[in-house]
Amino acid sequence: MADTGRDGADKRLYLDDLQVGQRFMSGTHTIDEAQIVAFAQQFDPQPFHLDDAAARGTMFGGLAASGWHTAAITMRLQVEGGLPLVGGIVGAGGEFAWPNPARPGDILRVESEIVEIKPSRSRPDRGMVTVKSDTRNQRDESVFTLTARLVVPRRAAAGDI
Amino acid sequence: MADTGRDGADKRLYLDDLQVGQRFMSGTHTIDEAQIVAFAQQFDPQPFHLDDAAARGTMFGGLAASGWHTAAITMRLQVEGGLPLVGGIVGAGGEFAWPNPARPGDILRVESEIVEIKPSRSRPDRGMVTVKSDTRNQRDESVFTLTARLVVPRRAAAGDI
Repeated sequence: MADTGRDGADKRLYLDDLQVGQRFMSGTHTIDEAQIVAFAQQFDPQPFHLDDAAARGTMFGGLAASGWHTAAITMRLQVEGGLPLVGGIVGAGGEFAWPNPARPGDILRVESEIVEIKPSRSRPDRGMVTVKSDTRNQRDESVFTLTARLVVPRRAAAGDI
Repeated sequence: MADTGRDGADKRLYLDDLQVGQRFMSGTHTIDEAQIVAFAQQFDPQPFHLDDAAARGTMFGGLAASGWHTAAITMRLQVEGGLPLVGGIVGAGGEFAWPNPARPGDILRVESEIVEIKPSRSRPDRGMVTVKSDTRNQRDESVFTLTARLVVPRRAAAGDI
C-alpha cells in the first residue's frame, strides 16, 4: 500500500478504504517567533511562550511554542491533505504527548498511521478509526504525538440501498 | 481543604502544597462565532468550523468550535488563575475527550482536580502532578475533558540547603 502525499486531499477516503498500517505524510509548516508569541498572547500567556529572554530562565531554556499551538498546527497539516478523510477530521478524543517543544524556525510535518478500524454496530453509515500521528521538526525530533479516535463515514453498503 | 477561586493566581502553589482531591475553579470565557471562525481559518479550516450554513449539513448540525480551540481556551482559563502553579502550567502529555462541541455563545469554565502527585526520584526540585480537568458550558455540558501530566516545582527541602 502506497503512502499518500500532501496531494491526498484530492482523493478523500471512507472508512472502507482504510487499512491498519496505512500511512499518510503531510506537507510542512514553518513556525516562527511571531506565530509563537501571537498564539501565546491569545491562549497561553506564560513567559516561556511570550519572550525569549524571559524563557531563558525557565526549564525551556529559550522561547518555546505552546503545546496547544503545536497541536493546532498538527491539525492544520492533517486537514490540508495530511489525513484525507471523507467528511473531514472529526475527533472524539485521544492521548497525546509533547516529547520536545517546538522552537522558532522549526519546520514541522506530520506522519499519520491508521492503527484501528471499528465499524459502528448501531450506525451502518460510520465507524471509529484510531490514528496515531507524530509531528516532527527538521531534526526529526518529535514535538507532538497523538493517538486520536476519529469518526469516519462509510460507503453506503450495497445491501442498504 | 477549600476550593481556590479565580483569584488563586495570587497564591501560586508548589507540588508540596497540593493534595489529591484538591479542586480549582477557573473564571469564564464566552466563545462567539467570530472567535470560532478565526481559529478555524488559521488552524482547522473545515466547513463545520467555518460557516453555520455549511455546518448544518454535517454531523455537527450547526457551527461548532474546533476541538483544539476548546482545548486552547481551557489552557487560557487555567493559566489565568484556574490552576495556580508555581512555574506555570507545563504539560508533558495526557488524555482527552470532546464529549460535546462548543457553540457560539457558550460560556465556558474549567474545573480542575489533582488526581496524582509524584515527586521525582532523580530531581529533588520537581515532580509530576496529574490533573483532571473538565471544561463545561453554561448548561453544564462537558465540551473538553483532559487528564494531563504536569511538571511542577517543589519547595527547596530543608535537607537540601
